[in-house]
Amino acid sequence: MAKGLPTREEDYSQWYNEIVGRADLAEHSAVRGCMVIKPYGYAIWEKMQAQLDKMFKETGHENAYFPLFVPKSLFEAEEKNAEGFAKECAVVTHYRLKTDPDNPGKLIVDENAKLEEELVVRPTSEAIIWNTYKGWIQSYRDLPILVNQWANVVRWEMRTRLFLRTAEFLWQEGHTAHATKEEALTETKLMVEVYAKFAQEWMAMPVIQGVKSESERFAGAEDTYCIEAMMQDGKALQAGTSHFLGQNFAEAFDVKFATKEGTQEYVWATSWGVSTRLMGALIMTHSDDNGLVLPPKLAPYQVVMIPIYKGEEQKEAVVARMKEIKLELEAAGISVKLDDRDSHKPGWKFAEYEVKGVPIRIAMGMRDLEAGNLELARRDTLEKKIYEQNDIANKVNHLLENIQTNLYQRAIDFREEKTHKADSYEEFKTILEKKGGFIYAHWDGTAETEELIKKETKATIRCLPFTAKKEEGKCMVTGKPSSQRVIFAKAY
Amino acid sequence: MAKGLPTREEDYSQWYNEIVGRADLAEHSAVRGCMVIKPYGYAIWEKMQAQLDKMFKETGHENAYFPLFVPKSLFEAEEKNAEGFAKECAVVTHYRLKTDPDNPGKLIVDENAKLEEELVVRPTSEAIIWNTYKGWIQSYRDLPILVNQWANVVRWEMRTRLFLRTAEFLWQEGHTAHATKEEALTETKLMVEVYAKFAQEWMAMPVIQGVKSESERFAGAEDTYCIEAMMQDGKALQAGTSHFLGQNFAEAFDVKFATKEGTQEYVWATSWGVSTRLMGALIMTHSDDNGLVLPPKLAPYQVVMIPIYKGEEQKEAVVARMKEIKLELEAAGISVKLDDRDSHKPGWKFAEYEVKGVPIRIAMGMRDLEAGNLELARRDTLEKKIYEQNDIANKVNHLLENIQTNLYQRAIDFREEKTHKADSYEEFKTILEKKGGFIYAHWDGTAETEELIKKETKATIRCLPFTAKKEEGKCMVTGKPSSQRVIFAKAY
Repeated sequence: MAKGLPTREEDYSQWYNEIVGRADLAEHSAVRGCMVIKPYGYAIWEKMQAQLDKMFKETGHENAYFPLFVPKSLFEAEEKNAEGFAKECAVVTHYRLKTDPDNPGKLIVDENAKLEEELVVRPTSEAIIWNTYKGWIQSYRDLPILVNQWANVVRWEMRTRLFLRTAEFLWQEGHTAHATKEEALTETKLMVEVYAKFAQEWMAMPVIQGVKSESERFAGAEDTYCIEAMMQDGKALQAGTSHFLGQNFAEAFDVKFATKEGTQEYVWATSWGVSTRLMGALIMTHSDDNGLVLPPKLAPYQVVMIPIYKGEEQKEAVVARMKEIKLELEAAGISVKLDDRDSHKPGWKFAEYEVKGVPIRIAMGMRDLEAGNLELARRDTLEKKIYEQNDIANKVNHLLENIQTNLYQRAIDFREEKTHKADSYEEFKTILEKKGGFIYAHWDGTAETEELIKKETKATIRCLPFTAKKEEGKCMVTGKPSSQRVIFAKAY
Repeated sequence: MAKGLPTREEDYSQWYNEIVGRADLAEHSAVRGCMVIKPYGYAIWEKMQAQLDKMFKETGHENAYFPLFVPKSLFEAEEKNAEGFAKECAVVTHYRLKTDPDNPGKLIVDENAKLEEELVVRPTSEAIIWNTYKGWIQSYRDLPILVNQWANVVRWEMRTRLFLRTAEFLWQEGHTAHATKEEALTETKLMVEVYAKFAQEWMAMPVIQGVKSESERFAGAEDTYCIEAMMQDGKALQAGTSHFLGQNFAEAFDVKFATKEGTQEYVWATSWGVSTRLMGALIMTHSDDNGLVLPPKLAPYQVVMIPIYKGEEQKEAVVARMKEIKLELEAAGISVKLDDRDSHKPGWKFAEYEVKGVPIRIAMGMRDLEAGNLELARRDTLEKKIYEQNDIANKVNHLLENIQTNLYQRAIDFREEKTHKADSYEEFKTILEKKGGFIYAHWDGTAETEELIKKETKATIRCLPFTAKKEEGKCMVTGKPSSQRVIFAKAY
């Protein structure tokens, strides 16, 4: 257990906050609800971005950039979307400051520079993008449009938590336009699958794909697909969403296209996004009471090397050999940091890189050097082992793969252990209270029942999983017929 | 000359606007002064970003992310900086919209959700970053901090032009903190050199490095270094700046550090940035009356392949061979687009990729196929030539290098031709009027003389070039002594 770090058992929420701080991932800023993403945290986000971007491009998407601001009149055009976000909008009303005549050196808003129409800081970009697509789409030849944007968005939040819920966050938002409903639905499905693949293969985070109930849908969508992950407190975290928007935005912005047959039809739309919230998911999926644990594929550096020595002569000898090994590892595609600073002792460094979740630590002293050995410690299991230095790159690569797989398997096992079925509302409440986790139960499909359960238990329907077996049953609350179980959980 | 595209001679400004539109780079949005960067334009920006990011990391910098908003009280802390940007600030005053009781379906600002303190949308991030650095810096061990941020910023502009001057733009801003003045000065210089290297080697755009006169300095800086490029209308474009900020921000935000000797001292700072303005510079440096011309190193695809055929059978044969060649080119690291759409004729495609500035076009018909030939056209010189297909990747790579070099040399030659010396104010005015371009002249070093020249001629001092020879002379306006010539030009 890291010094002063609360255990997950003791205080899960504080454990999370402390890891974000101690691992140098992010911190609160002077702006209410907005975070500073620190270099080590941002380096992880960059790795996520790079891989997601690659996957988007491999599935035929291009990047573009649309304005930060949305004029109010455009924002309100799609009513459900506008209604869904209106309460969270930061609004720009003026475009100039001036010197305060009563307070030299201070500035005040210049009332002569009031905007004729207020600008909303984008909470999401459907409105501004569909207003733009109107100019891009005339005929079926202009379709599909497969565009993604990497951007910052703002949703005013009263209660914020670093990465999980912040007023400003970074994300990507895909916005596609299609000639047919089928094509748009295929795209919606494709992208939730891309997200699932990314979560599982890169974040080592198992997820369940499914469709949201109506009340959990994105404002303005006909259907929302999602990936849901389980955190170590048993709560669910929605890690990505892909929306089938039907023709709602095309109608709101009057975007029609000429079909091959010469008729005019509204365009079909999707949008999909993941955000810096994934950082929160990553932290909470793998970390332990010693700090952050990172999957090798997303670690800013996969290996940290710490020389152990007394005096300048020993240091020179050990560091010289470590530099050779570093080159060998790097040649094999492994990212390595060698920390040979004199300002900190090895023990301090061990603790530092442990809390930062570096997958493998290599330590070497004089005795190791002479014996041709080194010590490898893996962060996931905290095991230490002496290895011979020969063929070290292969050994490390093998270990990194092993760690990546192990983290994923461990998270799957944890989720399975924390997943239950409930056949009555009483059983449901007992499981939720005593064990938490995901609960598969029958539900009658109505928003009323969903609302009641939420009110009474704080659990929400996470999704109707794509893979759920059809199974005749009765709603645990109303006894009305149900054709499949849905997943309930308390959620972030 | 491309159909309907004005020549540079006829209407330079309209020529630029048309190229931005026709090459699908960007367009105006529904938000005053904000642009939409279209996929083809954004792909060029991504290539710029990738290379710059690599160069920043190679020089020891890390990325991070700081909030979009700056509380007014922080913004005004460094007075000169605040004063410099106050007139261009978009200000967030409210955090919620509500339904308009008088207009169902419409939204209005909720006056109950007025912020206690207004938030400025960052026009630059020194204030929020130095307020953050205060928490990161205690001792010399915490220095230097070498951080960069990729972000959007907003500077309210009344007259906007796509890429060159927009209310919102994308940029990177480096913000570094140092223990000594010397180290900060070295960093300032290093980064302007990084920019110059990027401009010359990647954008094929020659630049002059120098220092700004006091009145052209960044608000809050002690010194501003810059790279200045010449556009094809002879006007100068400031393409990147690197600022030595002295201890101004450290003083404003009270950021001190404990030295090795145990004293407390203010931290030294730099900041440096380039923006999507570089896109404007790129367009205006190389493009011609036929449209955009791109240097191969920044082209979204370096080669476009256009098959020429009649009927399905010919198409199959030609395209099959083209696909083989495409793989061969890609294996050699060349990016290729094969446009085998039936919806457009070859002539239309030729014109399309010419206006989009694709460096090399490969065309092939049945006769070429049978003879084992293909036609290569280079965009920079518009030359076409028949090549044998064997060893094609080497030929294309050689040609791409040649185009990159040629564009650079052409731009240098143009600049040299348009660069003059003036020894009297009369001569200066005549050159400026008849020839334009850069004028090297003596100046007495005062802001008054600079202002007078600007008022009378619209020319400004672009920089005091680093490489200028010391040369005793007399200010062309006042006759006072001057020790080196400075560069005057009209500027973007």
